[in-house]
Amino acid sequence: MLERPQLPKPGRRNFIRRAGRLATSPSDARWLAAAARLAGRARPLSRPNPAVGCIIVSGDKVVGRGWTGDGGRPHAEAVALGQAGDSARGATAYVTLEPCAHQSQRGPACSHLLAQSGLARVVAGVEDPDPRTAGSGFAHLRAAGIVAEVYPCDDARASLAGYLIRAEFGRPHVTLKLATSLDGCIATAAGESQWITGEVARAHVHSRRAMADAILVGGGTWRSDKPRLDVRLPGIESRSPQRVLLTRGVPPDGVKVINAPGQIAALEGVQYLYLEGGGMTAASFLAEDLVDRIELYRAPIVIGHGRQALGEIGLDRLADAHGRWTLVERRQLGSDTYEAYSRTR
Amino acid sequence: MLERPQLPKPGRRNFIRRAGRLATSPSDARWLAAAARLAGRARPLSRPNPAVGCIIVSGDKVVGRGWTGDGGRPHAEAVALGQAGDSARGATAYVTLEPCAHQSQRGPACSHLLAQSGLARVVAGVEDPDPRTAGSGFAHLRAAGIVAEVYPCDDARASLAGYLIRAEFGRPHVTLKLATSLDGCIATAAGESQWITGEVARAHVHSRRAMADAILVGGGTWRSDKPRLDVRLPGIESRSPQRVLLTRGVPPDGVKVINAPGQIAALEGVQYLYLEGGGMTAASFLAEDLVDRIELYRAPIVIGHGRQALGEIGLDRLADAHGRWTLVERRQLGSDTYEAYSRTR
Repeated sequence: MLERPQLPKPGRRNFIRRAGRLATSPSDARWLAAAARLAGRARPLSRPNPAVGCIIVSGDKVVGRGWTGDGGRPHAEAVALGQAGDSARGATAYVTLEPCAHQSQRGPACSHLLAQSGLARVVAGVEDPDPRTAGSGFAHLRAAGIVAEVYPCDDARASLAGYLIRAEFGRPHVTLKLATSLDGCIATAAGESQWITGEVARAHVHSRRAMADAILVGGGTWRSDKPRLDVRLPGIESRSPQRVLLTRGVPPDGVKVINAPGQIAALEGVQYLYLEGGGMTAASFLAEDLVDRIELYRAPIVIGHGRQALGEIGLDRLADAHGRWTLVERRQLGSDTYEAYSRTR
Repeated sequence: MLERPQLPKPGRRNFIRRAGRLATSPSDARWLAAAARLAGRARPLSRPNPAVGCIIVSGDKVVGRGWTGDGGRPHAEAVALGQAGDSARGATAYVTLEPCAHQSQRGPACSHLLAQSGLARVVAGVEDPDPRTAGSGFAHLRAAGIVAEVYPCDDARASLAGYLIRAEFGRPHVTLKLATSLDGCIATAAGESQWITGEVARAHVHSRRAMADAILVGGGTWRSDKPRLDVRLPGIESRSPQRVLLTRGVPPDGVKVINAPGQIAALEGVQYLYLEGGGMTAASFLAEDLVDRIELYRAPIVIGHGRQALGEIGLDRLADAHGRWTLVERRQLGSDTYEAYSRTR
């Protein structure tokens, strides 16, 4: 009989043993996912900084939690370390993004703070693509004798989507919102579109607007629907994002205007752009592969020969349409269904 | 302090106590739902009879199970009683449809068989709308000292949809199948539609065809796609239903033809009609409110300005579109989503 080679145990099990836990305890992946949920609290007010989340765990206890403050300060790690105090000694810090290594006039670098904290280990979900950090955050921690590693985490990546898309493509993350009937119409043939979805779905749209830095519509929708494009949810009315219009016509007062989809790259301070239509504007973004997420609200109604959700996107062959979108979320909103699809890249 | 009035306990709890069970035991509703699942095994080969399911429960044991045989005989109750034998004494029979009361040359009436069985109780999910039975099945059982009652059961109703629609509206139950992109297209603008959905979804369509008595398409689809409309699943190829064409043109050989949607009423022996398009044919059925169920396959692709799923259905106001459809089933088929919507009547 062949002897099985003695392979080193995978990192996660080592960690679980080190911490003296049962195999059913939350793993690194789960703590990172929890940190990613915390990061969600910072979106979008952390702008221009990415929304980061951090959890410090000692034994099986959470001793510190933090997320990026409004305007980008304080950083998530600084908040969590402040909560943990001496309990940080020998603990593990889970942080969605590699701790920053570059000095700033606004405060010390997080990797320096963490290095002085007595932590045993730092686990990050994503390596920072910012060239000022990009690996040197980890290097600084390791030089201080801390185990520092990346544990790739989809939730962490998703929570940093705006930051990562900007780093990779030099433009904001774009979410296209569609509200359709079962047969994919956004209005009747006569143009009636109020309402396809119900109250719960519409309130959900407002909550999604509040997570964006800017909302964009096309000139046709602006003129015909006169949309307010604001957040009308009690308590967060002030979260209404800036409004952007895609048009080659005369710009109305108080609204930023761009003439082509590609110009979103120049929208300053915008990590998350929420695209609300109409069908031609949405199609122009899809045609240039500038959509990262589709949020689809579907009402259980049939319209028949109404207005289509999208104009021409330049698809030549059906085969080219496949493999581009992955369902990442689904929930029921009253009788409507909400689905989010993420661009597979 | 006010005294709370002593209300009679609801029937289900009484039953649970009578049977000496814990509150977590399967209730009448669950046994009927189980009988409805059994009934599914009889569809569609029980035609021209309804597909009925029956479970006989003694204490907490199933002592007999049955479903309608091919061509309508034997009946579900006869099969279940045959299995139960003497164990039927004091037991409860759950049957999806009220047991038949009318004599037939093909065998004794089920209510007579049940009356002689020593059963304590018969619970049916639906009262038989057939005027030859319609309550007299229960009356016969009660005259024999058996507790006989209807416990309205949605699953039982759903399993008898073809029979109940025929009884109420004098026509087959109609299922409309749609396969669309996320934006509701059934083909590209150039007409390419193979394939929108993946292999798993297409196999599911074949399994659904096998549950129908007839498949209908419009003349345009017949001429352009030359669809085989058969069941290509190993082992049940013989289940291919009869093919029906909606056209005012010249009928092809070997295919039944109707000239208008309303003529489905005259399709003999058809309880379940499966409607496969195209968009104009589907719309003509929807416009006459002849669709009872929509089965929607959606692929995670975006087409943009392709062919719409449906033609004009005569919808004047958006408000009229609401409240007509209820989501009754959803499942993932590979990367595609299958949803079934039932007409709310």
